[in-house]
Amino acid sequence: MVAPPFPPTDVSLHAVTDTEAVPIADPSISLVEQIKLRRVKKGPFVAGIAAKTDSENFKDQEKNKDRPAAKRWGDLLTLESRSRKPSSLKAAAKFLAQEGLISLGGGLPSSDYFPFENIGAKVPTIGEFSEEETRVTGQEMTIGKHDVKEGKSVFDLSIALNYGQGTGSAQMLRWVTEHTEIVHDPPYKDWSCVLTPGSSYPLEQVYRMFGNRGDYVLYEEFTFATAVETAFPLGLRPCGVKVDAEGLLPSDLDEILSNWDEKARGAKKPVLLYTVPSGQNPTGATQSESRRREVYSVCQKHNLLIIEDEPYFFLQMDPYGETASAPTTNTEQFLKSLVPSLLSMDVDGRVIRLDSFSKVIAPGSRMGWVVASAEITERITRHNENSVQNPSGIAQVLMHRLLDETWGHEGYFEWLGYIRKEYTRRRNVILKACETYLAPLNGVATWVPPMAGMFLWIQIHPPAGCEDENDLQKIEQKIFDECINEKVLLTPGSWFMAEGKEQLKKNGKLFFRATYAAASEEAMVTAIERFSGALRSVFEIRG
Amino acid sequence: MVAPPFPPTDVSLHAVTDTEAVPIADPSISLVEQIKLRRVKKGPFVAGIAAKTDSENFKDQEKNKDRPAAKRWGDLLTLESRSRKPSSLKAAAKFLAQEGLISLGGGLPSSDYFPFENIGAKVPTIGEFSEEETRVTGQEMTIGKHDVKEGKSVFDLSIALNYGQGTGSAQMLRWVTEHTEIVHDPPYKDWSCVLTPGSSYPLEQVYRMFGNRGDYVLYEEFTFATAVETAFPLGLRPCGVKVDAEGLLPSDLDEILSNWDEKARGAKKPVLLYTVPSGQNPTGATQSESRRREVYSVCQKHNLLIIEDEPYFFLQMDPYGETASAPTTNTEQFLKSLVPSLLSMDVDGRVIRLDSFSKVIAPGSRMGWVVASAEITERITRHNENSVQNPSGIAQVLMHRLLDETWGHEGYFEWLGYIRKEYTRRRNVILKACETYLAPLNGVATWVPPMAGMFLWIQIHPPAGCEDENDLQKIEQKIFDECINEKVLLTPGSWFMAEGKEQLKKNGKLFFRATYAAASEEAMVTAIERFSGALRSVFEIRG
Repeated sequence: MVAPPFPPTDVSLHAVTDTEAVPIADPSISLVEQIKLRRVKKGPFVAGIAAKTDSENFKDQEKNKDRPAAKRWGDLLTLESRSRKPSSLKAAAKFLAQEGLISLGGGLPSSDYFPFENIGAKVPTIGEFSEEETRVTGQEMTIGKHDVKEGKSVFDLSIALNYGQGTGSAQMLRWVTEHTEIVHDPPYKDWSCVLTPGSSYPLEQVYRMFGNRGDYVLYEEFTFATAVETAFPLGLRPCGVKVDAEGLLPSDLDEILSNWDEKARGAKKPVLLYTVPSGQNPTGATQSESRRREVYSVCQKHNLLIIEDEPYFFLQMDPYGETASAPTTNTEQFLKSLVPSLLSMDVDGRVIRLDSFSKVIAPGSRMGWVVASAEITERITRHNENSVQNPSGIAQVLMHRLLDETWGHEGYFEWLGYIRKEYTRRRNVILKACETYLAPLNGVATWVPPMAGMFLWIQIHPPAGCEDENDLQKIEQKIFDECINEKVLLTPGSWFMAEGKEQLKKNGKLFFRATYAAASEEAMVTAIERFSGALRSVFEIRG
Repeated sequence: MVAPPFPPTDVSLHAVTDTEAVPIADPSISLVEQIKLRRVKKGPFVAGIAAKTDSENFKDQEKNKDRPAAKRWGDLLTLESRSRKPSSLKAAAKFLAQEGLISLGGGLPSSDYFPFENIGAKVPTIGEFSEEETRVTGQEMTIGKHDVKEGKSVFDLSIALNYGQGTGSAQMLRWVTEHTEIVHDPPYKDWSCVLTPGSSYPLEQVYRMFGNRGDYVLYEEFTFATAVETAFPLGLRPCGVKVDAEGLLPSDLDEILSNWDEKARGAKKPVLLYTVPSGQNPTGATQSESRRREVYSVCQKHNLLIIEDEPYFFLQMDPYGETASAPTTNTEQFLKSLVPSLLSMDVDGRVIRLDSFSKVIAPGSRMGWVVASAEITERITRHNENSVQNPSGIAQVLMHRLLDETWGHEGYFEWLGYIRKEYTRRRNVILKACETYLAPLNGVATWVPPMAGMFLWIQIHPPAGCEDENDLQKIEQKIFDECINEKVLLTPGSWFMAEGKEQLKKNGKLFFRATYAAASEEAMVTAIERFSGALRSVFEIRG
């Protein structure tokens, strides 16, 4: 048996290349079907221990060949990112393919000593996704140590539990690449995926790639607090862009950038925009397709890189107020019902999309992926090789067995359809509670029904003449304290202000964020009732 | 049902505190037994979703209370590290403990939507660890979604698959803290653990905590190439310290630091030493206990922080040449047979120990932990909160079920005893092959039997008068090329030089690294035979 190869950064055991493609597709064949045909045409998928891999192996080369290449971003790279080099040990990788060569050159341990004969899970059968149904009709998946050798699968523990590559496993990379093609079909040639251990880490990586200490980064004015907190120690400063009910305002983005005063700001014009276009945290806002095109257009004008963070993309719900329909089992219909991503309109290759399984499978998977131009993903891969390596092999092989070999792409979209129904139901419950308990408060509390995500953003309008009328920070604190008295907790909006809580004075708008993601229906209704009690108390509303 | 709490950085669902301790231990009770008693005394372990945790909850407070506190390192922190702040959302955490409070404040999804009814694995029964035995007598572990609620375990999927804390789960943190106490018993008060996704990432984190662009970091002159490559983009420069058969030379370390010329070097005196004291990669050297004390002493003299990277600590093998004994099933004996770590003699709290499951369980677990002073681990935790979060929950819960609830500490040490026997056997095979094929080559190839790890470091002594006698780089390349001809691959030693391959000219020593970790016995013997063939060819050795 040939000795194992080098450490993961320098192995090319079985090159998985795709130099052929399915001819221009028959439009009556869905994308998913095309991908199945492409797989068949390529023949057996072989990717052993630490197999080198690349999205190019899995894309529709025929479709891509006439598309424009991405713009180049090398000029914007920080010194740190520019300095990253491939592993020195890679040089030996090419010899490993030689017939009969025995390598004692590597540092990979033997799978003999991985104390797992198999790893398995009981997962929902397609179409029977609830916890209760899974208990009864769920199916058992079992991943053995040597399934590949035994012809049972393309991925097993002997591979997944060993070192991998900075891209992630070829097996999961194939799946996410195909998924990206099905859902977004990025309109440029050299788009590429790389697996990540969640989305917070690649965000930090991108900051380190393009942000120098003192630079500004653009955010929605209310934003995911962690995104700003991650930037802060790196010396990156937040610049908030106004939002409305549909999210980021392109006019404000344009104005900020057109009037950027380097001297006054003490920094060059920003190059990075961080946005959460679907079910934004905390505002719950979802940018419509036309809004996204406007945003993209402004980004083109000012040549921004767009960090498109989309953990809630698939939590796009049925419109509020309409009769709930049965979950769609048709992939094409499901995809049509989604607002298209910025990636799907990214002709320049300026979007760095962060995708994640956290909100649609489980946060504990610690798995996601980045989609960006190959120039960018290559830098991320080099960094992974010297830091996180790749997501846990245990998680990768379980997720692959579920998403690829058990559900497949279509089953996964059906699962997402189920999740959408669940979130729709929950959102409807909380909105009904708001109508019951908040609507009667004479306009003190207003809200826009969210169409995606897990957050409801309730705006508070202090009545004219109320105590401390002009001190929103004080009012916000009073409401928060009174909520605690009433035994309910919502998060004050000022905690999400990109430029800090102190902006509340200037900003002039008071909000509270509530989630409908997890509490029981009963608890949600009670919580909103208590919230209304707190508002009544603070603003002395009777009746 | 109370709504789930805040995002992971701000939750304190169930404080797990230990304000009592087992009285001063009866010396006849082993450390492992003491720990079991301590657990019993504390009562039921409760740590729910994203439970805040700390090693302090699991240490022997009685034993620690009179120990000195660690030195303080805050002055050495980089601006980036100093700038890290706790999450702003933490402020609300204290309210969550209130009886009857409903929180809609958080962002954690519901476990209803994690598509795993259970996850399981078949693992070896204690004492029957081989792959073959496991197939027959291995035991099934099954982790359900609600095992905690159902009283079956302290950890389940509803917790492990949700968000966690930057420390890692309380369940695994308890295990690694106890393990650290049993094995190393750090001799200062405020030592602390934090889980990491492997060891490469915390290494980068520590570089970013204490290294400013332009600084030097000290390494063994031949070192783990990745450690230098990780430092390079951060602008950190390697300074190599001479080694002998026992590893790092304290006299050379002292000399380099005593004579550090800031002006000539263009940088201040280094504060970081990176060392791999057991089964060093690539030299296979293991520092004896007395060597470690000398190294520590020099580090005290020059006030260095010591990054003790120990992936091979438990691959300490039986001495070469002695009759193999049966695996030790006695924990105390097993631990006594190990060379003590730098951590175990770390009275100052200057050691930052990187521990990993990669070489003793599986690289794909992507799990390890750091042991350092609480001042240091707190900074790492803050960084985790804004980057990797914590190791995959899937991996954490599987590893916990195996290491804590199936094998326990004693079973794990028995497993390590099995691994040691396996590595001993493999090492013996390759050494025998060297005796057979390399010893007859008139002293051209020499080696020191490694006592730990997975690497054999073969020194090449070009015969006097051989071609290119004074050009070691050329000779090294010739040997490498001839090896490829002979269809064998060993890694040239210059690839591991801390200060770069070009040092080979100055350094004057030629090495090749071979691993005995993974190839079959037959392949290893053949490989060494081929290697000898290559040497015979290059140096025209007959007979």
